[in-house]
Amino acid sequence: MVGFGLMGGSLARAVRPKMRSVIAVDADPNTRHAAIESGIADAAFATIEEVDVAADDLVILATPVSAIIDTLNRLTVLATEGCMVMDIGSTKWDICRTMNGLPGWFQAIGGHPMCGKETSGFGVSSAELYHNQTFILTPTVRTTPYLKEVALALIDALEANPLIIPPKEHDQTVALISHLPYLLSATLMQQASNIANGSDTVWHVSASGFRSMSRLSGSSPAMMRDILLTNRPAVISQLLRYQRELAEVVEMINDGDRDALVAWLEEKQAQHAHYQTVKNNGVS
Amino acid sequence: MVGFGLMGGSLARAVRPKMRSVIAVDADPNTRHAAIESGIADAAFATIEEVDVAADDLVILATPVSAIIDTLNRLTVLATEGCMVMDIGSTKWDICRTMNGLPGWFQAIGGHPMCGKETSGFGVSSAELYHNQTFILTPTVRTTPYLKEVALALIDALEANPLIIPPKEHDQTVALISHLPYLLSATLMQQASNIANGSDTVWHVSASGFRSMSRLSGSSPAMMRDILLTNRPAVISQLLRYQRELAEVVEMINDGDRDALVAWLEEKQAQHAHYQTVKNNGVS
Repeated sequence: MVGFGLMGGSLARAVRPKMRSVIAVDADPNTRHAAIESGIADAAFATIEEVDVAADDLVILATPVSAIIDTLNRLTVLATEGCMVMDIGSTKWDICRTMNGLPGWFQAIGGHPMCGKETSGFGVSSAELYHNQTFILTPTVRTTPYLKEVALALIDALEANPLIIPPKEHDQTVALISHLPYLLSATLMQQASNIANGSDTVWHVSASGFRSMSRLSGSSPAMMRDILLTNRPAVISQLLRYQRELAEVVEMINDGDRDALVAWLEEKQAQHAHYQTVKNNGVS
Repeated sequence: MVGFGLMGGSLARAVRPKMRSVIAVDADPNTRHAAIESGIADAAFATIEEVDVAADDLVILATPVSAIIDTLNRLTVLATEGCMVMDIGSTKWDICRTMNGLPGWFQAIGGHPMCGKETSGFGVSSAELYHNQTFILTPTVRTTPYLKEVALALIDALEANPLIIPPKEHDQTVALISHLPYLLSATLMQQASNIANGSDTVWHVSASGFRSMSRLSGSSPAMMRDILLTNRPAVISQLLRYQRELAEVVEMINDGDRDALVAWLEEKQAQHAHYQTVKNNGVS
């Protein structure tokens, strides 16, 4: 497990009982210490170079995207034929393109569990994080049927729900459903902070609505940096579309047409109810 | 209590033990039935006209804003000298202006508890809804020192935190902290629904981030209609400002300057941490 933070640590906690052994690779000495102390990892190293990656080992890359790509490139000289690599990075096209370019004896698959928190680190990891959440797999030209089976068994052990989609479609969908929401949240936090301008009244007036809408603005900068830089075209496309949608909303409120406004508000409530039905029951 | 839904019902549940009696006024027969059956109300009527409003009674208006203004106007011919009126509507300028115009023997104060849910109705009301939340009071020219004391005692009984600000400042602040967030959430839901276009893949990929950011889109259309129509200038001003902030974000991502991006992301995380500190400790 390369990266023993919230995502890697939680994954290790959940599957620990089913694994021969778990080796933690993390640059942070405190994390390595905690990984061993908690009994979740059998050994811990600062770099992948210190690990003897053997055939039939599953290497899971759970760092920000740029570090995943860097590790994939370094693995080519380290790993033994027959080893397997899976990543759980937030964007998939750049990673899967790198996986496609690996030597032919590599088995590699992209993954993206659709869960997380606005906080990070092994300290907030939890064995239940993946439970009942969607876990996306994005196959590459280096994905063997055997690795796909291993990945599905891992998802099953996490009690997560697998969803297999191509890397491009993944990146476009998460730009809408994850990256755009982050940017909207961060922009709202920017605006509120500018207006608050050092006074706390704004924050005292704020309630659960603002809490929901600003939560994502606390996300890890390193993670978000890599996401926004590796998924730039899709993110910009969603932002431009949002600007158009928002311009229509401004116009609607400017118009002040009561009936048109009510129809729009009711449609939003119905759309939200539909989304909730799909999420809660798995069917629409 | 005029309006026995989420807000009025929750307020009645919380203060019931400290009141001589509670009279529910609600247009919905099922709500009136539930109010009596639950033991929260001693009597229930469909309209305020059926209630004998006496001196020293506290009339609390807990409906959407337009119905509050309508009831205030009808109260002038119904209420006895010495009665007190307080509303808990979401915008305060239009309501307080109406209160200012009431006969001189009226005692009236504006209120706005900064709590709620994206669901509505007496069925989801709870005695704890107001607990530890900010409860804003906006005095009017009809606010007597006695009524202010009564209102503060009510807030104390709710275990909420009082905050006294002028109606205009209230409306400008909630436009930023509550109405803008609602519109951002609803616009995101609109965009996601348009892109999903009947398919459920988008919803299956969505996770807790989208859940947070779309939650407000499920808000009551009647409540939001009145909010957006009675706070139009402040809402539009916040929307225009958001459009400018978002345009800068688009430009920043287009630029792809790694260092500038990281600085911005770190600033958002720090702003979020500051807001959380103020909310959690009451100090910054």
